Amino acid sequence: MMASQADVVLDDPSVISRLDRSDMLGHIRRLPEQVADAWRIGTSVKLPPAYSAVDSIVTFGMGGSAIGADLARTVLEPSLHVPMLTIRDYTCPAYVGRRTLVIAASYSGETEETISALAQARDRGARCLVVSTGGTITRMARDAGMPILHFDYASQPRAAVGYSTMLPIAAICSLGLSPTTDSDVEEATDLLSDLGSSLGPERPFVENEAKQLAAHLAGRNAVFYAGALAEVARRWKGQLNENSKHWAFHEPLPEMNHNAVVAFEDPAGLNDRVAVVMLVSALDHPRTLVRFRALGDLMSAHGISWRKAAA
Amino acid sequence: MMASQADVVLDDPSVISRLDRSDMLGHIRRLPEQVADAWRIGTSVKLPPAYSAVDSIVTFGMGGSAIGADLARTVLEPSLHVPMLTIRDYTCPAYVGRRTLVIAASYSGETEETISALAQARDRGARCLVVSTGGTITRMARDAGMPILHFDYASQPRAAVGYSTMLPIAAICSLGLSPTTDSDVEEATDLLSDLGSSLGPERPFVENEAKQLAAHLAGRNAVFYAGALAEVARRWKGQLNENSKHWAFHEPLPEMNHNAVVAFEDPAGLNDRVAVVMLVSALDHPRTLVRFRALGDLMSAHGISWRKAAA
Repeated sequence: MMASQADVVLDDPSVISRLDRSDMLGHIRRLPEQVADAWRIGTSVKLPPAYSAVDSIVTFGMGGSAIGADLARTVLEPSLHVPMLTIRDYTCPAYVGRRTLVIAASYSGETEETISALAQARDRGARCLVVSTGGTITRMARDAGMPILHFDYASQPRAAVGYSTMLPIAAICSLGLSPTTDSDVEEATDLLSDLGSSLGPERPFVENEAKQLAAHLAGRNAVFYAGALAEVARRWKGQLNENSKHWAFHEPLPEMNHNAVVAFEDPAGLNDRVAVVMLVSALDHPRTLVRFRALGDLMSAHGISWRKAAA
Repeated sequence: MMASQADVVLDDPSVISRLDRSDMLGHIRRLPEQVADAWRIGTSVKLPPAYSAVDSIVTFGMGGSAIGADLARTVLEPSLHVPMLTIRDYTCPAYVGRRTLVIAASYSGETEETISALAQARDRGARCLVVSTGGTITRMARDAGMPILHFDYASQPRAAVGYSTMLPIAAICSLGLSPTTDSDVEEATDLLSDLGSSLGPERPFVENEAKQLAAHLAGRNAVFYAGALAEVARRWKGQLNENSKHWAFHEPLPEMNHNAVVAFEDPAGLNDRVAVVMLVSALDHPRTLVRFRALGDLMSAHGISWRKAAA
């Protein structure tokens, strides 16, 4: 889509509902409810006391279920006193054992990678719990006596990100491994509701940052740069892949300053097919904020189209 | 470069030496020596016994120093009974404490992110050691009584990957945390020497897989897909960025099957500007090998240019 016609397209509700066939907009609107419901479910399931005595937290999942674990880690990591890792694979790492909390998340309950890794973790005596809407993994958990964080929400896995993020957070907080509280979660749902208004489809293009970003990315290889929000950048990349069937990538700061940045010299002539979004946050290290500014100047000097999204 | 002239260019030693201004080829040729020297250094430094009693291994580094830690993890992970994590940032994670082995790697010794994170880890009483050729980080280590794995090798940091990979491996093995032996390392250096002949600049284009891959990637957005070799894919991406000033990205299998793969539908018309390399390995899970085959068929059906590199 050309930027010049983007306002016409993105401000027309009939065009949006025709393109948004799986109602992603509806799911985004229900994010505050998803978060509140997941927190309620996750904090009401009783977990064995032994689950608190662990040296690491390992989450198993793929795609829309795995990104929830990454976003949970982004929220929890500053207060976590054990490492938390996301495994997107068939194989359970060798270090998983009785002192590991394993959270296996599969929306459908049929994800073959997650089921394979969970079976191995179970056999090693890890403290396992399952996050799912049902399926094989739920039966497997029931047979092994594992706690189940069960939720009901009809959607694509990626549209249930409120559940896939908040259920692990709630479980980890219930175990006393992180101090997140009811009021933190209320604050988050209020914020999500506000953002739903300012970035929603009713807000016209000229004052809507989300629509302007969409126009910026259309037709180009989308690249997301982020520091503290690196996992959000990964989510945006995946959403563009899945919702828009669009090539997209993400690179973390400050690491990309040590390699990706030199591609801007571009002897191959690809710069005009790239659109960059920098996800900048108040959580970023002060030196990373300096790097974002330098990066913007450098991209402008090399004719790369870029935008900043502040969160 | 067009594929039709690539054989002329890549078989001409004078063209190669004109383009390879920092002698990356020479450094690649010396990889077996780097590996052997690093193993000798890393296994001869005496480490305090308390360094063996840890719950996790955390490496700090950026760019060419960090990738060594990732490659070390790829080698060690199947035998490691504690999680190993690479941190590319200013901030030391909250979980780092007395039961953490911290390996801070900075080729120059002046990397600001690594120095910042190491200072925090030191103040928390972590078991720290430093990998460097000198600089501020070496003085910092000496002041704090940390063991130093010192090496001398004049190059760009990325050209010292033999050291940045093998020094952490040697330290971790010295501590009894992994069972790698002298004969494993000898086998690796022999293999590197053989590869140096079959993929080196003297071998002509028509029978040289490395030169053919270069021609395939030239002028297009390079994308590397890998399973067990995911960190090798990251290294190739970084090398293309830094040596060729070229846009490049990497995606891990099986995760990319859950999102990136749908971008092949490509309504934006970017497929003809992409060149994919799949890094396939005997270490890959059997189901991942099935996925590689399906991926090749799918890319061909969508007109995406791809190659397979087997390792």
